[in-house]
Amino acid sequence: MNQQTIDRIRKFTEERDWDQFHSPENLAKSIVIEAAELLECFQWSNSDYDLQHVKEELADVLVYSQNLLDRLGLDADEIVNMKMNQNEKKYPVEKARGNSNKYDRI
Amino acid sequence: MNQQTIDRIRKFTEERDWDQFHSPENLAKSIVIEAAELLECFQWSNSDYDLQHVKEELADVLVYSQNLLDRLGLDADEIVNMKMNQNEKKYPVEKARGNSNKYDRI
Amino acid sequence: MNQQTIDRIRKFTEERDWDQFHSPENLAKSIVIEAAELLECFQWSNSDYDLQHVKEELADVLVYSQNLLDRLGLDADEIVNMKMNQNEKKYPVEKARGNSNKYDRI
Amino acid sequence: MNQQTIDRIRKFTEERDWDQFHSPENLAKSIVIEAAELLECFQWSNSDYDLQHVKEELADVLVYSQNLLDRLGLDADEIVNMKMNQNEKKYPVEKARGNSNKYDRI
Repeated sequence: MNQQTIDRIRKFTEERDWDQFHSPENLAKSIVIEAAELLECFQWSNSDYDLQHVKEELADVLVYSQNLLDRLGLDADEIVNMKMNQNEKKYPVEKARGNSNKYDRI
Repeated sequence: MNQQTIDRIRKFTEERDWDQFHSPENLAKSIVIEAAELLECFQWSNSDYDLQHVKEELADVLVYSQNLLDRLGLDADEIVNMKMNQNEKKYPVEKARGNSNKYDRI
Repeated sequence: MNQQTIDRIRKFTEERDWDQFHSPENLAKSIVIEAAELLECFQWSNSDYDLQHVKEELADVLVYSQNLLDRLGLDADEIVNMKMNQNEKKYPVEKARGNSNKYDRI
Repeated sequence: MNQQTIDRIRKFTEERDWDQFHSPENLAKSIVIEAAELLECFQWSNSDYDLQHVKEELADVLVYSQNLLDRLGLDADEIVNMKMNQNEKKYPVEKARGNSNKYDRI
């Protein structure tokens, strides 16, 4: 997300005085609730899904994730690069190539 | 996330030939699985959590969300702004201020 | 579950003095966390799963569900039959037969 | 659940010919989706929840769990007692009493 989008999310929360509801725990609950609504798009089929609905639910996941980053004073690039350092060590290219076995515990 | 981080995530997947596992459905499952691991940081307490663990699990949510954006050819800013348009209409400032009642069905 | 199994679950909690952690909210978090671990058995494949692992994670879902029933003083048969009354009205046989479209919002 | 309730759930599925949608993976997705709807009752508050809504969502978790037991030919009492054997060994009373630290990885 670029800075303008991040600022829009922050302004939305501030104007409604919703920071009071944004404890880290409440936001973690909210992320899993929205992620399950995203999964619901694929509940009975892996191929026949409503793209607009997928976009809306994925956007909700991203918005609540940004809310949690904000609440904890974190930066998306910083934590993702920290985690990618771990992933690159844990799954070296030569061993992990084309193999999902090593992939299921990240 | 900035372009450099996005490129790193894409390169990680490509080098391991893991695109074959990244169906939209598998990625939706992965996002909810990681979101639940994030929630696990707050399973028995809303205040006593391991920040490093929170960072790692939130990063996993963001990485799989980027994988899904990539798979569907979507742009985070575009879908988030589309959703924020909806949210701003649905929760006008004057009605939503300090009120979580209206907030629980986005 | 039969009464003996239910009693065993209750005794396990009581002996460890874990009722104090079993707020309805904590148990709802726990159920979704275990349900996501169950889903993890099917993260990258819908056919190649570890049955023993599935059994363990499904058992965890059932145990925490029983904990929540106990905490709220509810009876599984009572709430399930109440919900089946709703489901049978909502999805009449003649309309719902072989059709998952009507099925995805129960 | 008693046998009558289990039979009612089975008859509901059979009459609608919905077994075709009940792959283990689809049911695992369904359980996590319903568990997240249950969690939604506690999204912004751990104390102010709608008990009727809680009952309905918990019932959905139990129904889909029974569907998965049926699909895999499993018995609730059998798998729960197998798991309780593990739990009782993993969390001996004297060490686990009043301590949720040992509790968060079952």
